Amino acid sequence: MIKVDLSGAKSFFKGENPDYEAAARAHETLVSGTGKGSDFRGWLELPSRMISGELPRIIETAEKIKSRSNALVVIGIGGSYLGARAAINLLKPVPDENDVKVFFLGNGLSPDYLCDTLKQIGDDDFDVNVISKSGTTLEPAVSFRIFRELLKKKYGDRAGEHIFATTDKERGALKSLANSEGWETFVVPDDVGGRYSVLSAVGLLPMAVAGIDVSKVISSAEKALKNMDLRSPENPVWQYAAARQHLYRIGYGTELLASFEPSFRFVGEWWKQLFGESEGKDGVGIFPASVEYTADLHSMGQFIQDGPRNLMETVVRFGSEAETYAVPFDEGNADGLNYLAGRDLGEIGKVVADAVRAAHVEGGVPNMVVEIPRRNEEGFAEMVIFFELACGISGYMSGVNPFNQPGVEAYKKNMFKMLGKPGT
Amino acid sequence: MIKVDLSGAKSFFKGENPDYEAAARAHETLVSGTGKGSDFRGWLELPSRMISGELPRIIETAEKIKSRSNALVVIGIGGSYLGARAAINLLKPVPDENDVKVFFLGNGLSPDYLCDTLKQIGDDDFDVNVISKSGTTLEPAVSFRIFRELLKKKYGDRAGEHIFATTDKERGALKSLANSEGWETFVVPDDVGGRYSVLSAVGLLPMAVAGIDVSKVISSAEKALKNMDLRSPENPVWQYAAARQHLYRIGYGTELLASFEPSFRFVGEWWKQLFGESEGKDGVGIFPASVEYTADLHSMGQFIQDGPRNLMETVVRFGSEAETYAVPFDEGNADGLNYLAGRDLGEIGKVVADAVRAAHVEGGVPNMVVEIPRRNEEGFAEMVIFFELACGISGYMSGVNPFNQPGVEAYKKNMFKMLGKPGT
Repeated sequence: MIKVDLSGAKSFFKGENPDYEAAARAHETLVSGTGKGSDFRGWLELPSRMISGELPRIIETAEKIKSRSNALVVIGIGGSYLGARAAINLLKPVPDENDVKVFFLGNGLSPDYLCDTLKQIGDDDFDVNVISKSGTTLEPAVSFRIFRELLKKKYGDRAGEHIFATTDKERGALKSLANSEGWETFVVPDDVGGRYSVLSAVGLLPMAVAGIDVSKVISSAEKALKNMDLRSPENPVWQYAAARQHLYRIGYGTELLASFEPSFRFVGEWWKQLFGESEGKDGVGIFPASVEYTADLHSMGQFIQDGPRNLMETVVRFGSEAETYAVPFDEGNADGLNYLAGRDLGEIGKVVADAVRAAHVEGGVPNMVVEIPRRNEEGFAEMVIFFELACGISGYMSGVNPFNQPGVEAYKKNMFKMLGKPGT
Repeated sequence: MIKVDLSGAKSFFKGENPDYEAAARAHETLVSGTGKGSDFRGWLELPSRMISGELPRIIETAEKIKSRSNALVVIGIGGSYLGARAAINLLKPVPDENDVKVFFLGNGLSPDYLCDTLKQIGDDDFDVNVISKSGTTLEPAVSFRIFRELLKKKYGDRAGEHIFATTDKERGALKSLANSEGWETFVVPDDVGGRYSVLSAVGLLPMAVAGIDVSKVISSAEKALKNMDLRSPENPVWQYAAARQHLYRIGYGTELLASFEPSFRFVGEWWKQLFGESEGKDGVGIFPASVEYTADLHSMGQFIQDGPRNLMETVVRFGSEAETYAVPFDEGNADGLNYLAGRDLGEIGKVVADAVRAAHVEGGVPNMVVEIPRRNEEGFAEMVIFFELACGISGYMSGVNPFNQPGVEAYKKNMFKMLGKPGT
């Protein structure tokens, strides 16, 4: 199971302990549904619901797509996009030769990006998974129009067989259209906000198509939910939530999520949405940023070591790599690295991670480590549950509603008006 | 030429104007070489030096590589990596069929990432461009050992013909090795720090191999340097540098660099190194973060709109896209988007960008816009010169040495000791 190591944070606590009593209360508020936004806690039950619900059909659909197509175009934005992209990037950063390539569209308006993606798909057979609760969110709706047209051109009357709509279970523009056109649909649950939806069909269908074992993801998530329900300061979720809230209260306003795996990049993006959108409101919130080590030690490293002392750092470490690779011996030893010859790159990486932690702590950056056993389906699922629970608890500890996002409407209102949408 | 639009920032200036006199002094300090770190201002002359120096040989070498290989492995970290990656991602986000694929290695220690890259290269012919001033920086040195071994296996005695070393002009482990092995070399200039080196061979060779017209980049950069030498508040460089310093002084501690192009992602990373490493020291500095719109309006958007009011936002906008794509008309109009039918995606994107700016300004986020004519070689070159000059001037305005990075040594010291390097 996931472990949290706060040994690099303790010296910054100023004599106080993180408030585990507040974490206990927040945890109870979350589970009992007595807090703000309590209608949006369906993610606490998603794994068991998926097992008895859509999971088999998701797997079946993925198999169908894999058997006939080379590409899947996933159309979605925000929570309807980041979870699947995070999972696929982490677990399948480079597709195998026979894997379906997954492309993410509808998460912006750049015509150049659209055309680049079309170029990559080329003449390949492809399917479309459009993900939108309402069907009227501008970016995915525009992309979906474009891809429906392309599907019609390519497959004629059979175009609809290549469309899978993940949307509201009964209402909304996309659901109505799917019903009238006969597209297969999956559900965006009513009681799960976008940023908590990766373990619903929203995330699982693209993941399954990319070759990820989603049954394992879901069964691991179910187990993690049970394990992390522990009501004690031994719970790694409490440790992380309470420590970061404590640090925030005493002046650490920015949290860096760091990893040593390049494949972690979009988990960082997913985490930024999860925490940023949940906690950043009412004028408060920890600013979430992400870095990739060791690369960024040679870019952001200077700032982290020596800049304003309001940064805290959370490092996600994986217990073991999939691969090993020993440093070769070199006769000439011009680079002076023979003292490392024969040692495994992954093991060297772990020493470097310890060295980085020591340097940052010494430089005044509180450090928290989240240790995940492996970078695989189980590890991903545990990590998702861990961060989601921590986010709900941390949000309640800070007094906000961790399940709404009122600020997202502001630009949309302006946008529709300026675009001349009828009735605005 | 680049324009800066401060109309979304002015209302936050609290009645004062940005300090253009200080910008003028900082500009003079920079150009006259009377400030801290003045030995590292060679980037002010790089374009003209390259034209009369290595540029033709860089182009010739790139042609040789393109004619015989399918892949180029660029080994480097920090400034020896981010510039080229930013340029290639921005200008060639998807390689054409006959383009050489450029892989970036030696910027971390993950064995999984290494093996994934090796899988992608497969049996293709490849060349290696190792970029390191000293040749002893851990990550690239380890990767280079691995790739030298692979080259030997693949090409035997001719392995050396596939190695191009960008390194110190006369000293250091890599230069010595290159001399004794007979590898072709290019120069990491003595008077240019890594983060300012993209327009030297460090950035130009990988860019040229990827199919970017580096002659155009360099001639545009030379022109931009002249244009932006203007000593007046009309200079967009002064506007940006002075505005962000003014905002920092009155409490805006975090700067978000935003773009509407997914291909901009690694320019964001390059920019974070440039500004973060130059300004983040002595306990001060603006925290640099980057976001991708519109995607991140559906993730970080909530925080930006409603979180703590210490964010400023710099949006890079390109005047026109390479591609156009009109929103299709849809008979049923289920998504209600027919009011957009026939309108170009890029034009819609511009309206959305204006809407976002209005919403953020209204929400309390000072907004600066950097307008770049086009996303092409000229635009990239102008942008590089613009941000480099702004960084030097902004750094001097804040009182730091914008050309050193003393904090980067802290983790290295720990690391070498913990790895058991002889003599530590």
